[in-house]
Amino acid sequence: MNPTADPPAQFSPSPILPTIAGPADLKALPATALPQLAQEIRDQIIQVTSIQGGHVGPNLGVVELTLALHRVFETPRDQFVFDVAHQGYVHKLLTGRGGGFFENLRHSGGASGFLYRAESEHDAFGAGHAGTALSAALGMATARDLKGTDEHVVAVCGDAAFTCGVTLEALNNVVASTKRLIVILNDNEWSIAKNVGAIAHYLNRLSTHPTYNKIHHDLERFFTSLPGGHEMHRVYMKWKRETKDFFMESSLFEKFGLRYVGPVDGHDQEELIKNLEFARDCDQPILLHVITKKGKGLEAAIRSPEKFHGASPYDPATGESTRPKGGPPNYQDVFGKALTRFAQADPRVVGITGAMPSGTGLTHLAKGCPRQFFDVGIAEEHAVLFAAGLATKGLRPVCAIYSTFLQRAYDQIIHDVALQKLPVTFCMDRAGLSANDGPTHHGLFDIAYLRCVPNVTVMQPKDEDELVDMLHTSLEHDGPAFIRYPRGASEGVEMKSKPSALPIGQAEVVRAGTNIIIWALGPMVGLAAKLAQDIEHELGISVGVMNARFAKPIDAALLKQHAAKASLLVTMEDHVVTGGFGSSVLEILEGVEDSPPLERIGWPDSFVEHGSSNDILREAHGLSPEQIRCRILKRWQHLAPIPVEADA
Amino acid sequence: MNPTADPPAQFSPSPILPTIAGPADLKALPATALPQLAQEIRDQIIQVTSIQGGHVGPNLGVVELTLALHRVFETPRDQFVFDVAHQGYVHKLLTGRGGGFFENLRHSGGASGFLYRAESEHDAFGAGHAGTALSAALGMATARDLKGTDEHVVAVCGDAAFTCGVTLEALNNVVASTKRLIVILNDNEWSIAKNVGAIAHYLNRLSTHPTYNKIHHDLERFFTSLPGGHEMHRVYMKWKRETKDFFMESSLFEKFGLRYVGPVDGHDQEELIKNLEFARDCDQPILLHVITKKGKGLEAAIRSPEKFHGASPYDPATGESTRPKGGPPNYQDVFGKALTRFAQADPRVVGITGAMPSGTGLTHLAKGCPRQFFDVGIAEEHAVLFAAGLATKGLRPVCAIYSTFLQRAYDQIIHDVALQKLPVTFCMDRAGLSANDGPTHHGLFDIAYLRCVPNVTVMQPKDEDELVDMLHTSLEHDGPAFIRYPRGASEGVEMKSKPSALPIGQAEVVRAGTNIIIWALGPMVGLAAKLAQDIEHELGISVGVMNARFAKPIDAALLKQHAAKASLLVTMEDHVVTGGFGSSVLEILEGVEDSPPLERIGWPDSFVEHGSSNDILREAHGLSPEQIRCRILKRWQHLAPIPVEADA
Repeated sequence: MNPTADPPAQFSPSPILPTIAGPADLKALPATALPQLAQEIRDQIIQVTSIQGGHVGPNLGVVELTLALHRVFETPRDQFVFDVAHQGYVHKLLTGRGGGFFENLRHSGGASGFLYRAESEHDAFGAGHAGTALSAALGMATARDLKGTDEHVVAVCGDAAFTCGVTLEALNNVVASTKRLIVILNDNEWSIAKNVGAIAHYLNRLSTHPTYNKIHHDLERFFTSLPGGHEMHRVYMKWKRETKDFFMESSLFEKFGLRYVGPVDGHDQEELIKNLEFARDCDQPILLHVITKKGKGLEAAIRSPEKFHGASPYDPATGESTRPKGGPPNYQDVFGKALTRFAQADPRVVGITGAMPSGTGLTHLAKGCPRQFFDVGIAEEHAVLFAAGLATKGLRPVCAIYSTFLQRAYDQIIHDVALQKLPVTFCMDRAGLSANDGPTHHGLFDIAYLRCVPNVTVMQPKDEDELVDMLHTSLEHDGPAFIRYPRGASEGVEMKSKPSALPIGQAEVVRAGTNIIIWALGPMVGLAAKLAQDIEHELGISVGVMNARFAKPIDAALLKQHAAKASLLVTMEDHVVTGGFGSSVLEILEGVEDSPPLERIGWPDSFVEHGSSNDILREAHGLSPEQIRCRILKRWQHLAPIPVEADA
Repeated sequence: MNPTADPPAQFSPSPILPTIAGPADLKALPATALPQLAQEIRDQIIQVTSIQGGHVGPNLGVVELTLALHRVFETPRDQFVFDVAHQGYVHKLLTGRGGGFFENLRHSGGASGFLYRAESEHDAFGAGHAGTALSAALGMATARDLKGTDEHVVAVCGDAAFTCGVTLEALNNVVASTKRLIVILNDNEWSIAKNVGAIAHYLNRLSTHPTYNKIHHDLERFFTSLPGGHEMHRVYMKWKRETKDFFMESSLFEKFGLRYVGPVDGHDQEELIKNLEFARDCDQPILLHVITKKGKGLEAAIRSPEKFHGASPYDPATGESTRPKGGPPNYQDVFGKALTRFAQADPRVVGITGAMPSGTGLTHLAKGCPRQFFDVGIAEEHAVLFAAGLATKGLRPVCAIYSTFLQRAYDQIIHDVALQKLPVTFCMDRAGLSANDGPTHHGLFDIAYLRCVPNVTVMQPKDEDELVDMLHTSLEHDGPAFIRYPRGASEGVEMKSKPSALPIGQAEVVRAGTNIIIWALGPMVGLAAKLAQDIEHELGISVGVMNARFAKPIDAALLKQHAAKASLLVTMEDHVVTGGFGSSVLEILEGVEDSPPLERIGWPDSFVEHGSSNDILREAHGLSPEQIRCRILKRWQHLAPIPVEADA
């Protein structure tokens, strides 16, 4: 089976990719071998991602570009900074990270799905969030200039990076900071969804009118070719001097002082190498505009670029997902459908995404209420401020932004939303672990960074039915509200036909108890209930479980009652313990005389790596159900030496 | 005395400003009265700011512009969004906030120095941080479109706002979001310092070549005026069609789909009104480029734009500060000079500011080591990422960013610096209160939002000598380090000739004690020592004081020793108690059996208003020395009913 589109031509029978241990091996190949290598790389990416999932489309699009980069430059001496690192697989395969390491992509012990300085000396700068490459590369180029060395720094940015504020901040600083920087604009018209905004529109016109750039640069020739051209050229040159080159600086990037070259066909190996050599030898910051085809080599990925941006396991021949069907719906689908119903019933309700309509579930809203749906590009700061502006006019905006990406809009949350107490709802998908993605994508800090902010409400549902209740509650609430929930499958509970409004700051008693009382948040509630049953059975004591619902404000009245009667309190959260929900409980208990000890269960104070599953990562960090049970038992035994048969 | 530059001409003897109770009164004036009103407004601003301090230059620059805005539009129905609100005084004076309220500017009970929705219905959106106006205004315009009403939304942005990523994110979304938005680009070439970067350079050329825009729009006329022009015009038109108007869309803002008009003289009242009327009636988003003179009307402010951006009280005739001289140096000067010495000794040390060279003290570095100094504009995200890039190449970057503005770079701190464990030092000036400025400028959340992040060190010096030790310590430390310190005058202690390296995570015993032990951070250490003396004297018990130095990692070993012997522990911090330093102490005490109670002293969970002084605000929130003494006594008495004579 050959799932790729281009027919192989005159290929050697022995595969080349296994012989590439590093960039030097690539450089030693004859140019004629590159098409076969490109084909093998595509086959390998398709084979591995069809089993492991991963970023299919972006990587298939940059095969020739990455080959050209490694033919022209010398890593690790020269440095590549790949933006967001959705396009780093080819680079990994060419820098000694193929074979079993790559085959185990995004799984425990295998290659990470992104780039990390710790993984290879060829990864000059790590990334998982978009828009960072230009800025980091500018720092590296500036450091080189200060040190007086002469290596090259190449930022490889997708077109979507230019919707990010930080890329544009960096763009404004390029010329002031360095005289030598190479920026590759890898233009495939897509971020994750189709790109939005004025810059995307502009790039599209550039790439669909490739003659523009030529005409622009050859303006003198254009003039002299006209009737009466020589006199015209003289006048034009005078005028050009007088207007200080404005006329010539017509490209957007030239306004920022970069030399613009392109567009170049990103799948023409020879053309790419020629242009990269030109860029390498250029004596000013240069932007090379490369047009690539997202998913090139896999028909299904070309047909469905959004689906194959980051795909779950699939059948390469058909493109169909091979993940078992059935089971409970994903949290994001429950959210997206519920929001659509609320928006249909109330025109004040609008949804905002930063280039993640599918990942957040807002595609449902986009279909159901297109006028109430906004995709602002990868621009979280703008997304939140835009929502704040909408809220001042009586609308009820809902920002659907992953927990980790919301870090981008922290100042807007404090300065624009919370200080003005505006009714903006934040739906934070991927709160907790995002196992295959790793540390750049886990959402483990949001309770800590939000609960210090005045005026905010922070909550987490125990299941998908409560998620809808919380969305309903937020839309009725007169102030900023944050709802965090995990990635993927929900609990599979029955959904009420009408959502309930939850009293703000009130916990739910899941299981009454007196000796040990566990305050759990979100998906920890179900686990706590199971553990409580086990521990009760084992110790013959009474173990209660609370669904805390609110990380801020906490149900202090109920908590104080518990502090007065229980011998041990436990908190459980899918979040770091440093400053998290458990800490917030501690703050309340501090004011209670003779309050019992509190065992805080949560992620330790370190970045959590990627891994095959949440369960594997929880086990590795002492957070498996059994490990939690042992911690609680141990703490209990320390308090009250009741004989216990377990292996604590 | 008339400190203004322009001579008054044919002015009425009775003042006009006191008759303006709101925009309607302004509209009722004959146009001929406007110059006198402008003069009176300037006199009033100079009079009040010379006593109270405040934003002098930016407000003197926008007198005619603000008059024109209120002549053409109808607030509160139409809505103005002033970026950063450094230019809102004139707007306040025209919307019923003059007289004693304005005279008490930036003081308790008086007008705030910024704009707040809570202060007036004419303030459509509050601000204190830069770059938010375009994005918020776009939200408001979009809400208007959805609701089908027809009011106008006007964003008034300084040129410096266009160095902010969020403004550029918004710019990319304007055309996709609305068909009607008015953006005023108030171009005075300065943010706080002189503007930097490619956009500033671009705007400067636009404004110094006002004919450019005309030529650009009248290109056809230009062509037809040339010899052989008619034939040329025909060819040009054909070419223009073929290149899809690229040639015409030569202005930066037109690339983003906005109509560009300008530059307009921002002090020509008639011209401004004419252009604003044109903008009001325009059927597409429009950017009106207005050139203003920062400080117009006050010679000293024109001479020293940076000094008079936000000035302390001054003599209007000479421009000299009237603040009493002498006293201890400011923290930022101590920092700036120390950094310069470190940079002179070690070429790896570089300093980065986001448009705040003077406010942060980096002007010392700019003078002493210009090659090691970087001003990146109001671009905190880029500042931190740029520093991360520098750090990967072995440099030792120091980001000098106010605590509240560092919120802008939160994701870069987590995703780029901490995750990669890069040795970037953050010097957070304005940690704690910034009394006259108010809630947008207090730095009260940084410990909470930083201590949840793995790999970081957070510290605060008790005095300026320790600040230099901490800077030295950070520069030697192999990971991210954050130093927070307050605005303004330091403690006035003697400085060591050579800084000491502090052991990371080790507290300093300031005063030994056994019954009550106070763990204090930063400037709270001095206050704690005084309180300890008083309480010891009063109760006849032993009160210890620790200089915690580190908010992360805390000196857990020493703290646990204290927990074992003391009857009461107290934490004191210039930070919110929610999730702050005291919370971090609680987390450690939780693991200690029978640990004593902890009284956590810090700011409550609400936004703190502006006020005349830190002391007044502390008193208002229960944090005066006397109030803290009473809280400690009360808690002590509750524990051990020793007779106390004080008024607790």
